[in-house]
Amino acid sequence: MTTLVETIAGVRQAVARARQRGLTIGLVPTMGALHEGHGALLRQARDENGLVVASLFVNPIQFNRSDDFEKYPRTLQTDLEYCQRLHADVLFAPSAGEMYPAQQLSFVEVAELGEGLCGASRPGHFRGVATVVAKLLNIVQPDRAYFGEKDAQQLAVLTRMVADLNFACTVVRVATVREADGLAMSSRNVRLTAKERQMAPAVYEALLATAAELRAGRDVESAKRAAGLVLEKFPEFRVEYLEVVDAETLRPVERMDRPVLVITAVWLESVRLIDNLRCDPR
Amino acid sequence: MTTLVETIAGVRQAVARARQRGLTIGLVPTMGALHEGHGALLRQARDENGLVVASLFVNPIQFNRSDDFEKYPRTLQTDLEYCQRLHADVLFAPSAGEMYPAQQLSFVEVAELGEGLCGASRPGHFRGVATVVAKLLNIVQPDRAYFGEKDAQQLAVLTRMVADLNFACTVVRVATVREADGLAMSSRNVRLTAKERQMAPAVYEALLATAAELRAGRDVESAKRAAGLVLEKFPEFRVEYLEVVDAETLRPVERMDRPVLVITAVWLESVRLIDNLRCDPR
Repeated sequence: MTTLVETIAGVRQAVARARQRGLTIGLVPTMGALHEGHGALLRQARDENGLVVASLFVNPIQFNRSDDFEKYPRTLQTDLEYCQRLHADVLFAPSAGEMYPAQQLSFVEVAELGEGLCGASRPGHFRGVATVVAKLLNIVQPDRAYFGEKDAQQLAVLTRMVADLNFACTVVRVATVREADGLAMSSRNVRLTAKERQMAPAVYEALLATAAELRAGRDVESAKRAAGLVLEKFPEFRVEYLEVVDAETLRPVERMDRPVLVITAVWLESVRLIDNLRCDPR
Repeated sequence: MTTLVETIAGVRQAVARARQRGLTIGLVPTMGALHEGHGALLRQARDENGLVVASLFVNPIQFNRSDDFEKYPRTLQTDLEYCQRLHADVLFAPSAGEMYPAQQLSFVEVAELGEGLCGASRPGHFRGVATVVAKLLNIVQPDRAYFGEKDAQQLAVLTRMVADLNFACTVVRVATVREADGLAMSSRNVRLTAKERQMAPAVYEALLATAAELRAGRDVESAKRAAGLVLEKFPEFRVEYLEVVDAETLRPVERMDRPVLVITAVWLESVRLIDNLRCDPR
């Protein structure tokens, strides 16, 4: 039975009761429109904790484009049912007024990690993400918080924030869940037209092609050309970036002499898709 | 008996044991060189909590001038004895390497409140203060954290940070403790020469003179002239600022139509003294 809780006081109470019973707390922060990617987070949280809290909050301060914020899918009722099926104990779904009762003046900034890649085209995005996750960690005080590897830069930013600011919480990274054709699950996928949906798996194919070149010993410039060959079959794609970066610092590398991420953001009309693939040197 | 603890793991263990016994936790963050001002914080924390943790950390990232950091008094042994006399349970005195094991990339910024007054001449100061206090709050997870009103801007910044980021902690403000002649207690007072020490109470007198004018219905410009008359008796003073500001937002006001702070920073040679006085309209 998943309890829907809309207030900070309410979720703190639920957590305090669980603590009194000696339970550990797992937090799965989401923006709703739950899919199997979230499902993997919720399942792992369920396996590892006595109390599972999912949060559902479409966080205004991490959107740099108001149309993206407005178009973000909102499906509370089906999300609640989804949480129910996965045996989450609490769905914390606060209003914007509950999370931001006054003008927010305090922000968490993570330098360097939040600046390139998605940060370059989305100024303030990772500041908004870090700030709302700091708030959620302070509200729920979980033992573990679960994030997906699909949002690799977010994961790097939040992992660093938790370490740098000494949050008493372990960041658990969960592997990307993909559709049968390879497309990474994302709440934004529902905004693709049928035709775009058919093209979308080429994003993952481009990552695979790049990774294959890197594994064959090619340098990054040559490997990126392989991605280009895959994506240019569809003129509808607009590549925002496709980079090979150090898996930890997210700084660009010239060859795969350490664990790397092949990471990309691609537009299909008004929908922005992100994906990445980790690749380790032999 | 005050236990000296130098590691984060050690202080977390002491706090966890206290929590298991059902005790509440009070945190008194300090930079050491303890005086009666800190004494007032420690006494109130002792009255209100089951476990009192004092922290002693001269935080490098809040000093914008390295000479000020280097000259900051360091007196661990007498500080430990002082904590002992005031029945603090734990003195948490970590090394810089314990608090900053890697380059700090994550910072807490509090907009507006940290920008004027002391923030104007000390860029990055309040960012450093907010960041280290966020770390200490996450390490100790106290029910209450104690700060002195002498550092009024710091108190405003931290109160806002705790609210904005939903720290599960109450900020307790404690009144400024003064020497018999009115000088606000400060760890930097020991750096005054005998002659400067004799002049220093004029800072407080200037605040009193300003407040008297405001209470008599004079506007801020006239009231500030009264402060000028007090301070200009000593050409050794260099006034960095003397302002009348809204007690909550710290924005300058033109007349006392709400609770205000008369707030100042004054240099005596190489020593910077700050002080403030709250003043309420009738």
